[in-house]
Amino acid sequence: MVLILHQGATSQDIDFMIRRIQARGLDYAVYRAAVRSQIHVLGDLSGETEADWRTQPAVKEVYGLPKPYRLANRTHRRSSTRIPIGSQELGSSDLIVIAGPCALESEEQGLAAARMVQSLGLEVMRASVFKPRTSPYSFQGLGREGLRILSRIREATGILVETEVMDVRDVELAAELADVIRVGTRNMQNFDLLREVALVQRPVILKRGMANTIREFLLAAEYILQGNEQVILCERGIRSFETAYRNTLDVGAIGILKQETHLPVIADPSHAAGNKILVRPLALAAIAAGADGLLIEVHPNPAEALSDGAQSLYPSQFEDIMAALRHVGAALGRSVAEPVPVRVSAGG
Amino acid sequence: MVLILHQGATSQDIDFMIRRIQARGLDYAVYRAAVRSQIHVLGDLSGETEADWRTQPAVKEVYGLPKPYRLANRTHRRSSTRIPIGSQELGSSDLIVIAGPCALESEEQGLAAARMVQSLGLEVMRASVFKPRTSPYSFQGLGREGLRILSRIREATGILVETEVMDVRDVELAAELADVIRVGTRNMQNFDLLREVALVQRPVILKRGMANTIREFLLAAEYILQGNEQVILCERGIRSFETAYRNTLDVGAIGILKQETHLPVIADPSHAAGNKILVRPLALAAIAAGADGLLIEVHPNPAEALSDGAQSLYPSQFEDIMAALRHVGAALGRSVAEPVPVRVSAGG
Amino acid sequence: MVLILHQGATSQDIDFMIRRIQARGLDYAVYRAAVRSQIHVLGDLSGETEADWRTQPAVKEVYGLPKPYRLANRTHRRSSTRIPIGSQELGSSDLIVIAGPCALESEEQGLAAARMVQSLGLEVMRASVFKPRTSPYSFQGLGREGLRILSRIREATGILVETEVMDVRDVELAAELADVIRVGTRNMQNFDLLREVALVQRPVILKRGMANTIREFLLAAEYILQGNEQVILCERGIRSFETAYRNTLDVGAIGILKQETHLPVIADPSHAAGNKILVRPLALAAIAAGADGLLIEVHPNPAEALSDGAQSLYPSQFEDIMAALRHVGAALGRSVAEPVPVRVSAGG
Amino acid sequence: MVLILHQGATSQDIDFMIRRIQARGLDYAVYRAAVRSQIHVLGDLSGETEADWRTQPAVKEVYGLPKPYRLANRTHRRSSTRIPIGSQELGSSDLIVIAGPCALESEEQGLAAARMVQSLGLEVMRASVFKPRTSPYSFQGLGREGLRILSRIREATGILVETEVMDVRDVELAAELADVIRVGTRNMQNFDLLREVALVQRPVILKRGMANTIREFLLAAEYILQGNEQVILCERGIRSFETAYRNTLDVGAIGILKQETHLPVIADPSHAAGNKILVRPLALAAIAAGADGLLIEVHPNPAEALSDGAQSLYPSQFEDIMAALRHVGAALGRSVAEPVPVRVSAGG
Repeated sequence: MVLILHQGATSQDIDFMIRRIQARGLDYAVYRAAVRSQIHVLGDLSGETEADWRTQPAVKEVYGLPKPYRLANRTHRRSSTRIPIGSQELGSSDLIVIAGPCALESEEQGLAAARMVQSLGLEVMRASVFKPRTSPYSFQGLGREGLRILSRIREATGILVETEVMDVRDVELAAELADVIRVGTRNMQNFDLLREVALVQRPVILKRGMANTIREFLLAAEYILQGNEQVILCERGIRSFETAYRNTLDVGAIGILKQETHLPVIADPSHAAGNKILVRPLALAAIAAGADGLLIEVHPNPAEALSDGAQSLYPSQFEDIMAALRHVGAALGRSVAEPVPVRVSAGG
Repeated sequence: MVLILHQGATSQDIDFMIRRIQARGLDYAVYRAAVRSQIHVLGDLSGETEADWRTQPAVKEVYGLPKPYRLANRTHRRSSTRIPIGSQELGSSDLIVIAGPCALESEEQGLAAARMVQSLGLEVMRASVFKPRTSPYSFQGLGREGLRILSRIREATGILVETEVMDVRDVELAAELADVIRVGTRNMQNFDLLREVALVQRPVILKRGMANTIREFLLAAEYILQGNEQVILCERGIRSFETAYRNTLDVGAIGILKQETHLPVIADPSHAAGNKILVRPLALAAIAAGADGLLIEVHPNPAEALSDGAQSLYPSQFEDIMAALRHVGAALGRSVAEPVPVRVSAGG
Repeated sequence: MVLILHQGATSQDIDFMIRRIQARGLDYAVYRAAVRSQIHVLGDLSGETEADWRTQPAVKEVYGLPKPYRLANRTHRRSSTRIPIGSQELGSSDLIVIAGPCALESEEQGLAAARMVQSLGLEVMRASVFKPRTSPYSFQGLGREGLRILSRIREATGILVETEVMDVRDVELAAELADVIRVGTRNMQNFDLLREVALVQRPVILKRGMANTIREFLLAAEYILQGNEQVILCERGIRSFETAYRNTLDVGAIGILKQETHLPVIADPSHAAGNKILVRPLALAAIAAGADGLLIEVHPNPAEALSDGAQSLYPSQFEDIMAALRHVGAALGRSVAEPVPVRVSAGG
Repeated sequence: MVLILHQGATSQDIDFMIRRIQARGLDYAVYRAAVRSQIHVLGDLSGETEADWRTQPAVKEVYGLPKPYRLANRTHRRSSTRIPIGSQELGSSDLIVIAGPCALESEEQGLAAARMVQSLGLEVMRASVFKPRTSPYSFQGLGREGLRILSRIREATGILVETEVMDVRDVELAAELADVIRVGTRNMQNFDLLREVALVQRPVILKRGMANTIREFLLAAEYILQGNEQVILCERGIRSFETAYRNTLDVGAIGILKQETHLPVIADPSHAAGNKILVRPLALAAIAAGADGLLIEVHPNPAEALSDGAQSLYPSQFEDIMAALRHVGAALGRSVAEPVPVRVSAGG
């Protein structure tokens, strides 16, 4: 770390700084100059933040701090983290697609969705039972009872389930009953929730806050990595001035993340788009930018969906996207699940 | 609500829509035209959301839904809500300033801060014990023990305390020991926390999410208003492309909120600024735009602060701002607390 | 167009509105209701703007205006506009890549760049002679003399050249000497320049303003389309709060534009990225989202470039991207130029 | 300037850098270290840009360049620049309000506006004759003929006029016929226009681009300052994600600008607001944040305005704002023009 001092910094100021540096167990080297004195601070800087030092009256600028996310940093682990999900491995050359309805609405709807998702060759269904809704008057999800329904659908069909947790008091049960848990965009900096999720041993999809920087995103992951290594980062669009769609899918972030961290990165084109017609180009763009997988909303009957109907795909639209993904994935050396041949069942 | 139908909408489509409208207990009127058929939907629309209807295949556009925040809406309550805080009343012509350090660091620092704040004529001190920190390696606050320290400072000095809650499991204790509780910017859409805060009878400062719209802000307030009427809205700067300061204080939002809701509105110039030198112009601008009060960081010794030192004011800077606030407040017909004459105490 | 009237609108108000509508040669139908009276305005609405009507005291909301860009709208021309560029056709299944240095620095550098670009199989070189530089103290380009150098390079090598115009007084000469002209991001709403460019018959690349909406983008194209049909839209990244790269490449805009307009759409990953390492993922993402081509900065020696060295690719990096583009393009049914076999020349 | 080198930088790399530094006539000092070698570059750095050095392969980071705007910098001129406008002086304790219609629509409308503005005690009227309109189908202004009408109104009433220039070919005439010229928000980085405006000796209002940083704003001013010292900076709202008003008035920018530059700073609350009702809070906030003046749209009859009717004030609304400005201005030690007593004229 380099502290650039104000032009008028005195010997007294420098002595004060040296005492502060030593009190933290750090080493230093001072370069005094007419115009631009500097103090180089050496040692274990992992606990230091720029803000802590910029606040000193003698300090003009602070440079050269190591990146504050240690565990998420690719310098910490060179090879990509691989997280097994069903028969595939996220972070490998597999492209994993998790699809399903925005919300679990009933056992019947959930079962229909599970079968639809399986028929498309997928192993994991998304379905939320706790819904973070902007308005208190909107459908809030089936709650803890929904978790139990998901668990029954899981047993009945063999599908894996992915679902969101919002309340620290629900994390344990969700981790027990679901295969993958998700921290939503509005909770990316709900630090108590992150700490709770760090205590369970389940893969966690951490969605980027819709107005959070890549740096803040990695620091949120760092909270979970304190106890749980299975963190999956999910880019889902950021807030910008554009109103022609819901959020701006940040493919640049995917590019940066794949270099900066060893954690797998997926994208959610459905929430970025906010409408069906934009899901296909966003899904393909995310994969081309290097994403390891996708989270997509598809509903047996979007017109009847209790939430997010506008962006939920019809099954036929989803099939079309899967076909395109297979082609583009192959061009990039990545493999996507194949559709399952229609099984003629005796009983129905 | 007006549903504009797609040009090709058939009688069958319209019949389907009518059944859906009736199933929700609503009334309707259909205007068929060559170019632009419409269905007007009448009745209690408070449970309807635009998304629910836009998702219908026959519907092109949805207009004219009532504002989704019912209780926060000024049409619900014409006169401004007044919330007594100490001897003043937020939402009246009083301008209330709540000041203090970013975080409670120790009982000693808290006591010094309380006395400093009182000497400036203020009745309420801000001090956080639960700190939402971007990095897991930064100082996280004194936690529940901090709440008890605050309570002792409160008793020792007579000062009122304002403090943040982050975890649903801490709300009850915080509401018991503090005079005003705060939901921070990163938790504005932590709906479980909002629901918990709705259950206590304390004034709650709800800070606007740094990337949330005014509409989302009022809907978050609506969650709390389900059970707790003492909601104070706090504008604290939004994310923009500008990097010369931390966040863009949105004075336009203050103007809109004062028209749109009966709830009191305050501003936090310290967190918007991110540096000492910008606090004064932002504080004055917020008041000129119509804010009812301010939340300001001031620290007995900012260079030693464990967090937010860069933006915490020295006591002398804060006094200067208070003087300017008195002048500008008076020009706008609003009164600010007067400084307390120095008390010569016998014992110390 | 539907005008929703304020609740208190009187018969007199409605009569006033009717006179205003008739004065514009438009027809109308009035729906009076207790809660929500409406006036439907019919006829040729292409000259009407929302702002003109929203300003009327009796009007609460204005809905249903046709899109204000008539010529750019895909409803105006169903089939995609194709613009021949060399032996390829932009807007067809061809993927066209235009590459070269940010700026023309000298005849020697320009010649080297042209030969490098040709050896990669490309037919068009980008090179700016008028440089819109943020600082008056930065290299401003070679100016009109640069245009003449470009023209000589064109003759010597057979390469086509693409270059930016900034000043209305240079448009005629640029259109005469270059094959494709470009309006830069800072000039997207320089309406006098757009009007001038509408007068020449050359393909024009119109770059999206870095903070302009898709709607404003299409309206800027509409200015050029008044006289010049060969408009190529170029997405080049928008301003957001993220600082890990320069601008946020808006792949969603590419998706929307391909549906909304018949004009070809290309992307500039170099300016969005602002650094070499992000150009590849952004280039691939743009193509996957549906772009018809790319504008890429590549320099024979980026470390010596007079501008934009940080984001200019080394030739070998560019070759690698071209190879990936061929694979992904093929997966999407699009063809990219093949590299030219090395020609052994006698003289050198 | 400090160049931080990559960890693997060799002696050869350093020699290469030294040659480059010397070729620019600069001095240097090298600090080699195991982890973090640096080259300090000394001398006249005013022509250096960060981008030029960051592009070097051995360079990891570039720090400590002086601010690139030399003439606009307050270090260049400590005392605030004062620009006489009528009997007032912008940049002094005077608060100057320039008001009038968005556009000149006819000689009659212009005369009525001039008399209205004068009756409110103001000396300068704004009125545009060249209109930068988003759509080619909107009213584009009266053009050069409008300039001559303005000139006649000026002679007939004695009012001063402020008007926008868009085309480099109109600058000379506009500077001859108007008292203050304006570069609009869409042209802030139209560098050819800035260069042209630098050649005339008239006060120039430079509006901040709606998505430009404060740094870019000052660099645009720097272009004009190359030849014309009378630059007035105007904050007019920036693009953000909020849609409840048109643009976010950036009062923080006003605070920063007043510290960073000696140039006077004004604000345009009308264009930020986009609607009448928000003009008052924004105008007062701008003044409280330190602005030296305001640019406000007021129209004799907003409902009939050919442009910007939604945000143009009725004369009575404007009078109310002027009264509040006088009070708040006085609280801040600044004086605003007094209204002129109604003159009873014989003829009318």
